[in-house]
Amino acid sequence: MIPNKPLVISVPEPRSLDLIFRPEQKAKLLDRYRIVEVCEAEFAQLGDDVLGQAQYILGQPPISSAQLARLGQLRCVFNVESNLLDNMPYAELFARGIHVVTTGAVFALPVAEMGLGLALDLLRDITNADLAFRQGTEAWGGDGNGQARLLSGANVGIVGFGELGKALRQVLSGFRPTIRVFDPWLPASLLVEQEVVPATLDEVLGLSDVVFVVAAVTSENQGFLGHESFARMRAGACFILLSRAGVVDFDAMMAAVRQGHIRAGTDVFPEEPVAADHLIRTLPGMLRSAHRAGALDEAFKRMGDMVLEDMDLLDRGLPPMRCRRAERETVARMRSKPVTRN
Amino acid sequence: MIPNKPLVISVPEPRSLDLIFRPEQKAKLLDRYRIVEVCEAEFAQLGDDVLGQAQYILGQPPISSAQLARLGQLRCVFNVESNLLDNMPYAELFARGIHVVTTGAVFALPVAEMGLGLALDLLRDITNADLAFRQGTEAWGGDGNGQARLLSGANVGIVGFGELGKALRQVLSGFRPTIRVFDPWLPASLLVEQEVVPATLDEVLGLSDVVFVVAAVTSENQGFLGHESFARMRAGACFILLSRAGVVDFDAMMAAVRQGHIRAGTDVFPEEPVAADHLIRTLPGMLRSAHRAGALDEAFKRMGDMVLEDMDLLDRGLPPMRCRRAERETVARMRSKPVTRN
Amino acid sequence: MIPNKPLVISVPEPRSLDLIFRPEQKAKLLDRYRIVEVCEAEFAQLGDDVLGQAQYILGQPPISSAQLARLGQLRCVFNVESNLLDNMPYAELFARGIHVVTTGAVFALPVAEMGLGLALDLLRDITNADLAFRQGTEAWGGDGNGQARLLSGANVGIVGFGELGKALRQVLSGFRPTIRVFDPWLPASLLVEQEVVPATLDEVLGLSDVVFVVAAVTSENQGFLGHESFARMRAGACFILLSRAGVVDFDAMMAAVRQGHIRAGTDVFPEEPVAADHLIRTLPGMLRSAHRAGALDEAFKRMGDMVLEDMDLLDRGLPPMRCRRAERETVARMRSKPVTRN
Amino acid sequence: MIPNKPLVISVPEPRSLDLIFRPEQKAKLLDRYRIVEVCEAEFAQLGDDVLGQAQYILGQPPISSAQLARLGQLRCVFNVESNLLDNMPYAELFARGIHVVTTGAVFALPVAEMGLGLALDLLRDITNADLAFRQGTEAWGGDGNGQARLLSGANVGIVGFGELGKALRQVLSGFRPTIRVFDPWLPASLLVEQEVVPATLDEVLGLSDVVFVVAAVTSENQGFLGHESFARMRAGACFILLSRAGVVDFDAMMAAVRQGHIRAGTDVFPEEPVAADHLIRTLPGMLRSAHRAGALDEAFKRMGDMVLEDMDLLDRGLPPMRCRRAERETVARMRSKPVTRN
Repeated sequence: MIPNKPLVISVPEPRSLDLIFRPEQKAKLLDRYRIVEVCEAEFAQLGDDVLGQAQYILGQPPISSAQLARLGQLRCVFNVESNLLDNMPYAELFARGIHVVTTGAVFALPVAEMGLGLALDLLRDITNADLAFRQGTEAWGGDGNGQARLLSGANVGIVGFGELGKALRQVLSGFRPTIRVFDPWLPASLLVEQEVVPATLDEVLGLSDVVFVVAAVTSENQGFLGHESFARMRAGACFILLSRAGVVDFDAMMAAVRQGHIRAGTDVFPEEPVAADHLIRTLPGMLRSAHRAGALDEAFKRMGDMVLEDMDLLDRGLPPMRCRRAERETVARMRSKPVTRN
Repeated sequence: MIPNKPLVISVPEPRSLDLIFRPEQKAKLLDRYRIVEVCEAEFAQLGDDVLGQAQYILGQPPISSAQLARLGQLRCVFNVESNLLDNMPYAELFARGIHVVTTGAVFALPVAEMGLGLALDLLRDITNADLAFRQGTEAWGGDGNGQARLLSGANVGIVGFGELGKALRQVLSGFRPTIRVFDPWLPASLLVEQEVVPATLDEVLGLSDVVFVVAAVTSENQGFLGHESFARMRAGACFILLSRAGVVDFDAMMAAVRQGHIRAGTDVFPEEPVAADHLIRTLPGMLRSAHRAGALDEAFKRMGDMVLEDMDLLDRGLPPMRCRRAERETVARMRSKPVTRN
Repeated sequence: MIPNKPLVISVPEPRSLDLIFRPEQKAKLLDRYRIVEVCEAEFAQLGDDVLGQAQYILGQPPISSAQLARLGQLRCVFNVESNLLDNMPYAELFARGIHVVTTGAVFALPVAEMGLGLALDLLRDITNADLAFRQGTEAWGGDGNGQARLLSGANVGIVGFGELGKALRQVLSGFRPTIRVFDPWLPASLLVEQEVVPATLDEVLGLSDVVFVVAAVTSENQGFLGHESFARMRAGACFILLSRAGVVDFDAMMAAVRQGHIRAGTDVFPEEPVAADHLIRTLPGMLRSAHRAGALDEAFKRMGDMVLEDMDLLDRGLPPMRCRRAERETVARMRSKPVTRN
Repeated sequence: MIPNKPLVISVPEPRSLDLIFRPEQKAKLLDRYRIVEVCEAEFAQLGDDVLGQAQYILGQPPISSAQLARLGQLRCVFNVESNLLDNMPYAELFARGIHVVTTGAVFALPVAEMGLGLALDLLRDITNADLAFRQGTEAWGGDGNGQARLLSGANVGIVGFGELGKALRQVLSGFRPTIRVFDPWLPASLLVEQEVVPATLDEVLGLSDVVFVVAAVTSENQGFLGHESFARMRAGACFILLSRAGVVDFDAMMAAVRQGHIRAGTDVFPEEPVAADHLIRTLPGMLRSAHRAGALDEAFKRMGDMVLEDMDLLDRGLPPMRCRRAERETVARMRSKPVTRN
């Protein structure tokens, strides 16, 4: 080993280095750092020769307190899965000033674009109109525009204003909508600065033509959008679910769609894959996407870029600025399931 | 008749006053003006009592030179159909300083939103993925994202930069694309001011991930996008046809889609309605909309708003600023077919 | 003469070809066109050999009806002075479909930037604070910020929304102000589309922290901002006069400043140059600029660019799109004085 | 004391509660929290009854390790001075997960607006032209525009891209400049996302028409802009110093101005107040402001808003999001002097 290069333990599963690094970026990684590649099982067996020198962990393996104590040079854990799982002693990591960062921001734009695509599809009935055309039953001109409406100038609601909410705001900006945001973890003035309107959940639901749900699942918000929430929505409004199925009472959502009260699009489901006979498969007024919104190759490749940029800052004794840092206060509240597929 | 109110001859067919005026706006029209409502056949029979006093024509009836000579007070023809047909002596109108204006700008935003919806659908395979889901054959996560790509930061081409091109630029702005525009009727610096890149047609076709065609049909550009044009496009690029089918060699477009060279979406067709057995109905890689992009009720209603605003300016001796004026130089070049349905 | 090149009569005084064309653009002009350069006196003497072939006039010389009749090929008069003077038979020009266009838009950005500079100077007392510093009487920190206030989020009023008003909106946009606009020549919806608030003059005056006056002088608005107007303004507001002194009662403006009711900045004066003993020279609360706002060399040079772009369109039988066209209805209302200096 | 209200030790000097809280916000503070108001001397004497219960410290008093050990409930120190001084054991605070946050972001917009005002003044010679006007020596029109130039479309450089750099980008946005940023503490991709160009210091200096310096003084950058830096700048460029005099070799800056190589504006000085006979007071080509850029009352009042918003988040067990958190890695590098006046 060349002693002067920082040592990185690479254990990115279910990702892989080739998934998250473009070839030239992987070459840069290998050039700048000593890489010890292991699977999670091997990670648990690493000796002090590696643990004692490792400055970075690239991945999110289970780490015990005992192991952490031996990771004496550790500065940062790069979680590239990008959910924060309950598999390492975060309090100890933070007390030692070790950063835990995630690369989930790479999914924000792809998901936001898909969300806008689903919304425009529902607003203009694009999928059903194409199907009708294939079947020779299309309606022409205004006759085919039953409930169609403009997004420009519309009232839009966003539930949750993390990276994904901000990306939505960005891709929506050309439509000059009024955007109301409910996010109890953010101060109102920060929302105002980003030219959205801080709002209660009731306002977001009750005043919007389109509602996007992009909140992470936490210990506090599981299934918090239920029958009452959907009843509060405007008749004919669109509901777009992009983050995690766990925040929604799925049966309540489907009921509201079945009654024709709202239309809905979703990229996530309580059980994935969805059962072959699940009613959602053919529910009219519903648009479905099989958890495809974020999983673009160009998104995964940006993970590697982010990791390299933050390693460079850390190498120079600076804090990481590119990846998102886990927070002492909120890390324990996260309840998203780990992904099993990229 | 109350002599002091300006007289308007209303002959809007195929539109109607109720289609283009909201009730409160129609009330305003009736309050401010004397309205003589006629169909086109009746218009041809009007006597000098009406013709000699009419200040405005609301509609686009055939007008002969002889009639025009009798329309001694005429100031403006409001074409609400909004194609400029060869049915009135434009040269004489312009020589007399009579404005001919169109209200087609109301369709710009609805068509632009549909265009963006079609583009996002093709880029993310929204319609096919929903269909697969209905049939139980959906692919999950990255497996379902074959050719999927981001629009953010993409190279976008726009052919024609009238009201519709500008509306496209507007709704695309949140994606921060590089937008290349081909429009030989506009000076390059005007495009630069609007933060798009002036380009040749070859550049627009060859450098874009998504090409939007929003040019009107003129005597010069009928069918000007043919086999060679599509061959020039990037493999896997998307082609979105929004303005008029006449500018495209439809068979060439379909061939390029069939070969898998491009994907395409269109709202317009050479013959509408499309024949029941037309190959385009089931062509894979193609997304179809039955001339629905502009025909939103809220768009038609804005026509009345525009007419009232410009009548108000004209009443005060000012030029119309809201509707688009026909131009002496270009009016004779227009070749769009009249609409027969709203 | 090479017969196929269009003939241009160049009579730009008080401008000159070298003032308004960069060398490479002047070369382009000379390459594409036959240029007959004359002064105004010579123009009056031109024979049919020139008049009968001239397609463009580059300048704004007096033209009689008799001359116009001989200008049988004339398509466009490029007024580069850029006020529309009462020195040619506009009605006849328009009846023949000859365009009269002006290049005044080149001044919009320079004047808007100066206007913003004057406003920030008044809001933050930049000039007086620098003077105090030179004299050793500066006040430090908050002590030096008596009436200082932010422009970000402020209420801004604009009187007149032509090219200059739009340029102001542009340079102000980063401050996210609420912009109220009074312009009776424009329909309200056009203002809304540009994200400003249509307003009455009283609203603009009474609700704004900063008022910019950028209206041209017309037969209707000479001196229309008088004592009552200034009284209506908010105490401590700033008044920035950029277009023409003729729209303001200067004594009333100075009185309002002297009373400390408002602060003001102006680039224009009723008589220029200003008398040596004029009270405005030393009036506290007043910021002065000697008609310098537009007269940047880079602005003059853009005139030539505009002329070439529109000549190119006209050469191809298209209407000019770059310069601003004089309007039949408003040309006779203009009352700005001709400039005598560049 | 009402036991359920969180206890706040208030020791904001040199600020005061009345400086940083609007009356209604101060009422809210007093309503929600038990406030123990002390001066720094008294703070050092506080007993365990207060220290042991305090959740927040509003101020930046010296804190010893011994005191910190007794502050068992402490969650956050709100530094409202807003420089991070070396007067508390940051490492221990961070190890215990206690936040140290600053409210300096309130100065960002006021300073940015002043910076833009100084730049426009230099670009258009506003102060000198007004002085000449007072003295009767003004030059009219283009004659008064010697070196004047547009900011629109210009090359702008920013050194340091914290809150203040971002605010500058914001107020500059309407000018559509190319903005190059040098900030070695930020990853390049973060700058690209904010639509500025990551650049080296040499590029920022050598390619810009206007350079804004808004970097904080650290252990690494004291006086880092010296003779060589100014020599690298474009002839006639403007240099605007807004953050701290410590990053600049002032004599070198003055020499570059005296030689006419650059023009400069500054709000900060190595010694404040500046000596009565300091050469900078009358140096031509220099614009001076007596540390007034940030000290607006409305800025101070926003400090209180920020404190209340973050206390609310902390009360709910969430991390502070409004104020800026001190970073373990960088806190020890800060070298700004404490302020002695508001």
